[in-house]
Amino acid sequence: MDQIRLDYTNTLADAVSPERGVLESELKELQPRAAQALQDVLARRDKDLRWLDLPYADEELEQILDYCASVKGRFKNVVVLGIGGSALGTIALFTALASPYHNDAPPGDLPRLFVLDNVDPDLVGEWMEHFHPEETLFNVISKSGGTAETMSQFLVFRDALIRKLGQAEHRSHIVMTTDAENGVLREIVRKEGYASFVVPDGVGGRFSVLSPVGLLPAALVGLDARALLQGAAEMDQRCKTTAMEDNPAMTYACLQWLLQERRGQPIAVTFSYSNRLKNLGDWYAQLLAESIGKRKGKNGEDVFAGPTPVRAVGVTDQHSQVQLYVEGPHDKWFTLLSVEQADHVVQIPQPGPGLEDLAYLGGRRLGELFHAERDGTRIALTEAQRANCTLVFPKVDAHSVGQYLYMMELSVAIMGELYGVDAFDQPGVEAGKIAAYALMGREGYEARRGEIEAAAPKNPKIIG
Amino acid sequence: MDQIRLDYTNTLADAVSPERGVLESELKELQPRAAQALQDVLARRDKDLRWLDLPYADEELEQILDYCASVKGRFKNVVVLGIGGSALGTIALFTALASPYHNDAPPGDLPRLFVLDNVDPDLVGEWMEHFHPEETLFNVISKSGGTAETMSQFLVFRDALIRKLGQAEHRSHIVMTTDAENGVLREIVRKEGYASFVVPDGVGGRFSVLSPVGLLPAALVGLDARALLQGAAEMDQRCKTTAMEDNPAMTYACLQWLLQERRGQPIAVTFSYSNRLKNLGDWYAQLLAESIGKRKGKNGEDVFAGPTPVRAVGVTDQHSQVQLYVEGPHDKWFTLLSVEQADHVVQIPQPGPGLEDLAYLGGRRLGELFHAERDGTRIALTEAQRANCTLVFPKVDAHSVGQYLYMMELSVAIMGELYGVDAFDQPGVEAGKIAAYALMGREGYEARRGEIEAAAPKNPKIIG
Repeated sequence: MDQIRLDYTNTLADAVSPERGVLESELKELQPRAAQALQDVLARRDKDLRWLDLPYADEELEQILDYCASVKGRFKNVVVLGIGGSALGTIALFTALASPYHNDAPPGDLPRLFVLDNVDPDLVGEWMEHFHPEETLFNVISKSGGTAETMSQFLVFRDALIRKLGQAEHRSHIVMTTDAENGVLREIVRKEGYASFVVPDGVGGRFSVLSPVGLLPAALVGLDARALLQGAAEMDQRCKTTAMEDNPAMTYACLQWLLQERRGQPIAVTFSYSNRLKNLGDWYAQLLAESIGKRKGKNGEDVFAGPTPVRAVGVTDQHSQVQLYVEGPHDKWFTLLSVEQADHVVQIPQPGPGLEDLAYLGGRRLGELFHAERDGTRIALTEAQRANCTLVFPKVDAHSVGQYLYMMELSVAIMGELYGVDAFDQPGVEAGKIAAYALMGREGYEARRGEIEAAAPKNPKIIG
Repeated sequence: MDQIRLDYTNTLADAVSPERGVLESELKELQPRAAQALQDVLARRDKDLRWLDLPYADEELEQILDYCASVKGRFKNVVVLGIGGSALGTIALFTALASPYHNDAPPGDLPRLFVLDNVDPDLVGEWMEHFHPEETLFNVISKSGGTAETMSQFLVFRDALIRKLGQAEHRSHIVMTTDAENGVLREIVRKEGYASFVVPDGVGGRFSVLSPVGLLPAALVGLDARALLQGAAEMDQRCKTTAMEDNPAMTYACLQWLLQERRGQPIAVTFSYSNRLKNLGDWYAQLLAESIGKRKGKNGEDVFAGPTPVRAVGVTDQHSQVQLYVEGPHDKWFTLLSVEQADHVVQIPQPGPGLEDLAYLGGRRLGELFHAERDGTRIALTEAQRANCTLVFPKVDAHSVGQYLYMMELSVAIMGELYGVDAFDQPGVEAGKIAAYALMGREGYEARRGEIEAAAPKNPKIIG
């Protein structure tokens, strides 16, 4: 089987230094706690952590594939209206598994894919200027059905569809992904008879990529949803063991916790040596930041916890961030995403006379240069005492990406136990949301609006 | 004049707290040092910091516009072969000033633009599968002419062009941007007679966006290079004063230094509340990281300096990073990029019967929601004692973007003086480069290769 591998040699004190790296004795010492954390998480599989079972949702998968077959060839575009956990997984899958030029020349009769994960009028307005709603399938994704951004976009595009196609016909251009029972979107589905899929209970936004939230858009543009689930299921099986040396999710969680809490490295860099895997870093950034970034510990005490995720791309960021990574503060650790076998072979021609300085490149493959630069950077990081591990993908395909997604989800759930925070809520986004409601004049938020107005700075400091 | 404005009210102790915010007395106290730093930087305008004068390079601009006129309508694609400072400025300009769907439907007879800033064979190989070199102009950008990534790509595409078009004809498909005198690329220009532009002395990669490095690709796809320079020139004039309250670059540099060095906030988040401005954050990430991320101070002592730049996009990242930003460790400060006037107006229709929960959205503009969310997030950050400033763009155009670019370049130069590091070198990228050369078997690096092989871990730790 083509397993992804975790090489954590360079996170250890032996490779970097005792000040910067993890001692094997610390990993051993942490093992019982981590094992307990793993078991606690897995025990919630049938209760509130239903996302653990998504790899086995064969029935949902068949429904998705049936729906895709039923609309095949009908639409030039698929537009996802969703944000955060309803968008980042889809963007990551599309970047990893489709051509970067898919939208320029969609293969076969597949549609283009757009993820409108912002309400910037310049983004939405430009889309409307360039494409036609009547050629488009809109996948509206919101578990709660109350997300202001997504609902606004839904109202905008529903109206555009109805004006073009009429009330009856517009319905076949919308497919909803939302809660099975509750919320405005489910209500609309009942009323209008839109096609719909379910975000199951126990599947929070950032743990939803392997539900219809991520699988439906992926399958609509021809990605292999079945292989994604298969890869995830294999990772699930691998991660049932509490033996640290066999469980990559558990080991990764322990490394993250030790390197931040015992070695003072609060910044976690996902450094993708693959252009195709780069948006996995954005997906993981949400997963890590929202899950572990918490003010309160489990007993209600202030902890202000959480690593800061950063995404980098190799070799690109060797010419942007590596100067800081190698010479700056010792406040970062690194996860390189590495691909053994690219899909393309590009030969570098001989430079010819007059270009002797480039002779070392001639006759080599671009992939050799790519790998040499990756290894060169890894060596430089290690010699500068910057802890780094490597996740090795045998190749970039749905099977390996499914493994990665599940491994990181499980790992972050284990981190929640190690950090002592609730990895599955997000209380910190409420304050901004409520203030925005108040500023929009939403009913019930008048008092908050009054407070905001009263608190406006009397002496603002502005240059210009 | 449409000036960009710096509102730093919420970076002050009064707005957040004395623990987290800057005291006005600290700014006053820092003023003489900052004024000296500004004057030291500006005094190098005619010496080694020639990038300060780029806004006035009218002759170069005319050459660029003449060249663009001469190739107008000839190419379907422009491909930039460059990396780091030869790519990030162009990507930022293209995202900010062209439509996000420019490549889907280039306006008029303008070409599409691709920036191939990686040697991942899956990126380069996919481009070759989808597009035709013989319809393409390649802009090869490297000051030194020795960048391995760029030179490899040049060899690949030169060969493809010659095979399609022959030796004579291929030449008109390549335009070089490189040093005036030295390096392999300049040598090739002399030999082959390629069109070429100059990266002037005293213009390092990350300070080169307003040179032909950034201006030529921008002008080729119809962006207003003249207005960029005009905006930059106006910012230059604004920033000659040493009065803190009038000089946004100087104030911004002081805020960065005080918030990291006196308040322990090492992470600098550029939070763009504009989809179009989002890649300015990537451009700034290089500028800040490579300039200030330094092991050695000016006297050769170990300092391990440097803030870590992070890029976020609003409202998108409210659903991904804001949980961490509001509740996580007090280790970040924020620069919001805000746009007063979007180019598009998108009306949100009335939700109609049964959707009363969405009534607060109906009849409003998408831009109102966008601004309410931005202000809501700013309020939430401030109430959580997270220092934040806002750079207000009256609108997104070449004039405002030119101001921003110059302001940040000057600001980072001043930061170099405050942090006591050389802001204009990048010694930390050498180690990885040399290791990569050794691994590629380049002549002269045999000893290093031997060292690397001898240092290979005897007991690698791998799961899988």
